[in-house]
Amino acid sequence: MNRTAQNRLAHPIEQRSYAILRARLGTTGLDTMGLPPLARAVIERVVHASADIAYATDLVCEETALRGGVDALAGGAPIVVDVGMTAAGVTTRDVVCRLGDVEPAAAARDGLTRSAAAVGLALAEVGPGAVWVIGCAPTALERLLTLAGLALPALVIGLPVGFVGAVEAKEALRASGLPAISNRSEKGGAAVAAAALNALLYEGLRPC
Amino acid sequence: MNRTAQNRLAHPIEQRSYAILRARLGTTGLDTMGLPPLARAVIERVVHASADIAYATDLVCEETALRGGVDALAGGAPIVVDVGMTAAGVTTRDVVCRLGDVEPAAAARDGLTRSAAAVGLALAEVGPGAVWVIGCAPTALERLLTLAGLALPALVIGLPVGFVGAVEAKEALRASGLPAISNRSEKGGAAVAAAALNALLYEGLRPC
Repeated sequence: MNRTAQNRLAHPIEQRSYAILRARLGTTGLDTMGLPPLARAVIERVVHASADIAYATDLVCEETALRGGVDALAGGAPIVVDVGMTAAGVTTRDVVCRLGDVEPAAAARDGLTRSAAAVGLALAEVGPGAVWVIGCAPTALERLLTLAGLALPALVIGLPVGFVGAVEAKEALRASGLPAISNRSEKGGAAVAAAALNALLYEGLRPC
Repeated sequence: MNRTAQNRLAHPIEQRSYAILRARLGTTGLDTMGLPPLARAVIERVVHASADIAYATDLVCEETALRGGVDALAGGAPIVVDVGMTAAGVTTRDVVCRLGDVEPAAAARDGLTRSAAAVGLALAEVGPGAVWVIGCAPTALERLLTLAGLALPALVIGLPVGFVGAVEAKEALRASGLPAISNRSEKGGAAVAAAALNALLYEGLRPC
C-alpha cells in the first residue's frame, strides 16, 4: 500500500502520481527514499502538486523544524495564510486570512502592501505560536519577519513567488533562524505552499 | 506608463515584475514584443504569476481564440472553474464552481472523479457559451471535452497540472479544435490558469 494512503485514503491518481515522481526523481539522482520522513513528505507532495521536479533540489527544510510544525498543528495551532488562493489549497483545517479586512488607505499610510498589512491583523487575532503559510506575497513574508519577536511562529512556510523580492524575502527567512520551509528560486506559489502544509497535516494523521 | 496600467492601476511591484520578465525573455531570445497583443498579454501574465520563464514557449494559444474569449467575457459569458483554488485566483468576476456540490458516491457510480462530475453540474447550470477554466484536474478537462457538443465553450483555458493525464488531456484539447489556451508540459495549475483568464479580463478593460 502506498505510504501516503496509510491513514488517509489516497486517490488512485495520487498513488500513481507518487509512483511516477519517485521513479523520475530516482533516475535524476534525486532519490527521496534516503531523506528524513517529513522532508521527504514535503518534497514529494510539492513535486506532486506542481509537476516540477526542480523543487526536489530547490526546497530548503530541516527535519527538526518540520517536526515542530507537525506537533504544533496536531496541538491545534492556528494556521495563517497570506491570500485566498493559499487558503483554498487547505481543505482539512480552518485557516486565518485577513487580506480582505485590510483598508487600502490605512495600509498605504503605513507604507505597507495590503498583504503586509494583513499580517499585522492576523497576528493580532492569533497571537504567538501559529503556523504561517505565505505562498504569494514576498511583502507578507518580509512583514512577518519584522514581527517575528511577537509572532514566535511554530513554523513559517515561506514560498512566495515572483521576480520582485521573493528570492530576497526567502533568503531573509533562512537567515532569521526561524523554523521554516523555503526555496531558493523565484518560483513558489499558493499551490506549492499549500502542498507543503498539507504534507505536514497528513503526516500528523499517521500513528507515532 | 506600463501598458498593463492603461485602464487598470497596476501596483508598482507588478510594473517592476513586467519590466524584469520582458528583459529576461528578451535575453533568452523570447521577446514577447512581436507577439499579437492578446497572446502577449496571456504569456506575460502567466510568466509574471509563476516566475517561470519556460511558459513563454510552453503555452499554446491562438489570437482569434483569445479574441473570442475576450469578447465573450465582455459580453457577460459565465466563467466556470474546476476547483476552489482556481476560483480564488479570479477576484474581479463571479465564477461557477460546483465541486462542493458533487456527491462522491454518485460520481463513483458514474465512474467519474469528483472534478469530472462537477463539470456536468456546472454545464447544467450555465448552458452553452461559457468560458471554462481548468487549472487542476485533468479529469475535469477530459469530461468537458466529452460534453463539448453541449457546452460549446467560448474558450477553454485548459492548464491542469500533474504527472497523470495532464499532458494527454491538454493534447486532446488541442486536437478538439475548440478555442483554447493550453500548454505542452506537465506543469500548469490554478495560479497559472487564473493568470491566463485575468489577462483576458484585464484586456477587456482596455478601449477598442
